[in-house]
Amino acid sequence: MAQILNGREVVDAVNERLRAEVLLLKEKGITPTLGIIRVGAKVEDVSYEKGAIKCAESIGVDVKKYLFKESITQEQLLNVIAAINLDLTVHGVILFRPLPDHIDDNTIRKALLACKDVDGITDQSMAGVYTGTDLGYPPCTPRACIEILDHYGIDITGKTVAVIGRSLVVGRPAAMMVLEKNGTPVICHTKTEDMETICRNADVLIVSAGQAKAIGAEYLSEKQVVIDVGINMTEDGKLCGDVDFEAAQSIVKAITPVPGGVGKVTTSLLMMHVIDAAKKTI
Amino acid sequence: MAQILNGREVVDAVNERLRAEVLLLKEKGITPTLGIIRVGAKVEDVSYEKGAIKCAESIGVDVKKYLFKESITQEQLLNVIAAINLDLTVHGVILFRPLPDHIDDNTIRKALLACKDVDGITDQSMAGVYTGTDLGYPPCTPRACIEILDHYGIDITGKTVAVIGRSLVVGRPAAMMVLEKNGTPVICHTKTEDMETICRNADVLIVSAGQAKAIGAEYLSEKQVVIDVGINMTEDGKLCGDVDFEAAQSIVKAITPVPGGVGKVTTSLLMMHVIDAAKKTI
Repeated sequence: MAQILNGREVVDAVNERLRAEVLLLKEKGITPTLGIIRVGAKVEDVSYEKGAIKCAESIGVDVKKYLFKESITQEQLLNVIAAINLDLTVHGVILFRPLPDHIDDNTIRKALLACKDVDGITDQSMAGVYTGTDLGYPPCTPRACIEILDHYGIDITGKTVAVIGRSLVVGRPAAMMVLEKNGTPVICHTKTEDMETICRNADVLIVSAGQAKAIGAEYLSEKQVVIDVGINMTEDGKLCGDVDFEAAQSIVKAITPVPGGVGKVTTSLLMMHVIDAAKKTI
Repeated sequence: MAQILNGREVVDAVNERLRAEVLLLKEKGITPTLGIIRVGAKVEDVSYEKGAIKCAESIGVDVKKYLFKESITQEQLLNVIAAINLDLTVHGVILFRPLPDHIDDNTIRKALLACKDVDGITDQSMAGVYTGTDLGYPPCTPRACIEILDHYGIDITGKTVAVIGRSLVVGRPAAMMVLEKNGTPVICHTKTEDMETICRNADVLIVSAGQAKAIGAEYLSEKQVVIDVGINMTEDGKLCGDVDFEAAQSIVKAITPVPGGVGKVTTSLLMMHVIDAAKKTI
């Protein structure tokens, strides 16, 4: 049976490190603070926000909420961001997207300072993750994948890592982070031919296919480590990943469960970015 | 014997298209103009510059040269860039790098407007190539690789494309462009394990290994298309690529020669970017 890569265990280790860092910052008079900008009240946004606040509290990070009705104008939202950019007491910002149709996503993204972009939405953060330089922040989800590998001592140097999905929030940044770790990324997507063979030959799979149980036995092999980024709801109302967990468990070497895997780690990485942004203000 | 993917043939086709576009622009009173900033007089810079000017002349693109001694200060160079940014008659800029040690590369890169960054050195251009959006310009060399594939009708949709090398001027942008073409990129590098097998299993190789004849028969297979980005000098003073051309020729389906392959096409792509930048000013 596969080793279970337990998100909770990673969170505990990361949060312990972060608590110590927050204490040091507070001794210097700095309380790392996350700004949350939410327009409207989508169920998933509110749910993520609750998780983030809980995580922040447990680490000692402050949260400032900027909540608006869907009717907020683009200009008003730009003013909010401009104020946050100038506010030395807010170190990092997340902004729930997609925004309402009357607000231009590009204009809003451009307004945020890269040094406060702890969720990797600005062009500078994109350039940073692409070039492997310290510019802005990468998105939290792919960084959570790498953190899980690191926590369990899984060295990907030289290894083939098949990344399934090419989105800007998971697939592409994950591939770039794999490269930074000296792994060999293969970016697979819906058009990829013979993805089964490519995946079976890979040492690690990072799966963000966006479809419940899309990755079954035919993609898997015994020496593999599988990181499942997917979060889907089954017909009977249970959460499941993009990997067929039951099938995978009896084939691969190690796998993250859903729930309790990558998703759990993501908010801790967000806090890591906020704390890093706070440190850089010293 | 492998089909030879002839750079000259691609150049002729691209330049013909570009000449027609320049004529249309000139009818509107716009002469696409490339600014060349050169500090010092390195042999390879001067040689590239000559090639670019020749290519520009044959297409009808104007060139303005900004030539400086190595003693130019950072501030002076920043002033030059600021003036070019404001100059509506210069549509695109290339800047030979590395710059002298007393000039900070990052500061200079940041100073250039992305809309004039026809050689893809700004963060915005990096973000553009990474996200696949129309922001700045990609570097010319990887775009030349894609242009060669396009010219010869080689459709990489779904195909595995092994990119050898992970630099910001070739490997990474080439991988991102492969993705935009719906190919499946594998980014290989010096730490990659069993690169021979990865390459043999790939449908296309884009080779930027930085070493003469580094890629021999053990990396090649018969259905492959090989794009050789390398330019090296052999002991007897001849140019050669990163692929062992003699070995490859009797194995693979198609290959670019060196000289006469990718290198030839690069300056035409630079002109394509300048013309595009000029069009956008309308």
